[in-house]
Amino acid sequence: MTTELTPAQDLPPGTALRHPTEADHARLQVALTEWWGGLGGEVGSMQRRLMVPRLFLQHFADTSFWVEDADGSLQAFLIGFLSQTDPRTAYIHYVGVHPERRRSGLGSALYHRFFALVQEHGRDRVRCLTGPNNLNSIAYHQRMGFRVEPGERTEDGVPVQPDYDGPGLDRVTFVRDL
Amino acid sequence: MTTELTPAQDLPPGTALRHPTEADHARLQVALTEWWGGLGGEVGSMQRRLMVPRLFLQHFADTSFWVEDADGSLQAFLIGFLSQTDPRTAYIHYVGVHPERRRSGLGSALYHRFFALVQEHGRDRVRCLTGPNNLNSIAYHQRMGFRVEPGERTEDGVPVQPDYDGPGLDRVTFVRDL
Repeated sequence: MTTELTPAQDLPPGTALRHPTEADHARLQVALTEWWGGLGGEVGSMQRRLMVPRLFLQHFADTSFWVEDADGSLQAFLIGFLSQTDPRTAYIHYVGVHPERRRSGLGSALYHRFFALVQEHGRDRVRCLTGPNNLNSIAYHQRMGFRVEPGERTEDGVPVQPDYDGPGLDRVTFVRDL
Repeated sequence: MTTELTPAQDLPPGTALRHPTEADHARLQVALTEWWGGLGGEVGSMQRRLMVPRLFLQHFADTSFWVEDADGSLQAFLIGFLSQTDPRTAYIHYVGVHPERRRSGLGSALYHRFFALVQEHGRDRVRCLTGPNNLNSIAYHQRMGFRVEPGERTEDGVPVQPDYDGPGLDRVTFVRDL
């Protein structure tokens, strides 16, 4: 648990990877506010913050990742866990990459770290989801080998599951075999 | 997993206990909207709904409980999990009891079921939290044997941890040894 991880070859030079701790939560909340380019306005920003309460850094730290620059500033994170109910499945709850680090391979490196880690725990399937308005995320997951699961309706060619996470919280869900 | 549980002696007559499934999520969202007496207004209601996305019923069903009446209507629920990072700890994320079932012993019965279940998994400590404005919940957890953890400031005699779950999301946190 919370093994310190040292600079990794598949990450951009000067960055360091570790598991997050509870003390990182305030900086995570700032990233959730600032990194999405205002997607969904003030409500979207509040929804992102509420979706990652501190419990994820307390209780799912060992399958989550945190990348900092040489000066200690946050560059990317991945919050994921092993499904407790379904022994085949691991779940990626939230991923963020600093806007200035996009297209650097950093996000993909974190996904592949997570895939390898959960495979060590016997998982052969990864699930995650996004909002139907997050077209960048939908395209990204398809490039990363995720299948889009069927939806009740189609928006811009994407199958959408209406009210998936509650009233008005439509989702696009993804699954990838490992 | 998702063992069907039959009517239990410690529950009110006519109620039945089981683990929740993903298909219960829409009804859970209705309960989160209607059972808190409008605590925190429309924002409070939305915060409650956002705090229990579908993933909890998908991936933590086997340590969560769902109680229905003879006619199948929801009477109470408890959403909890085993900490993946801390092998001593189990966490209760959300508990609700139908307003007409309050003071029936139903809530306590669910807490004690959860305590017994997580002890079978080797856990000897349970954590949970609530908002500082939820005075009923604070008093209830103290009656249930939880200690209030220290806070940075005190409100109405209760230690509060400011911005615990993000900006403006103050919390009162509890711990109970099993």
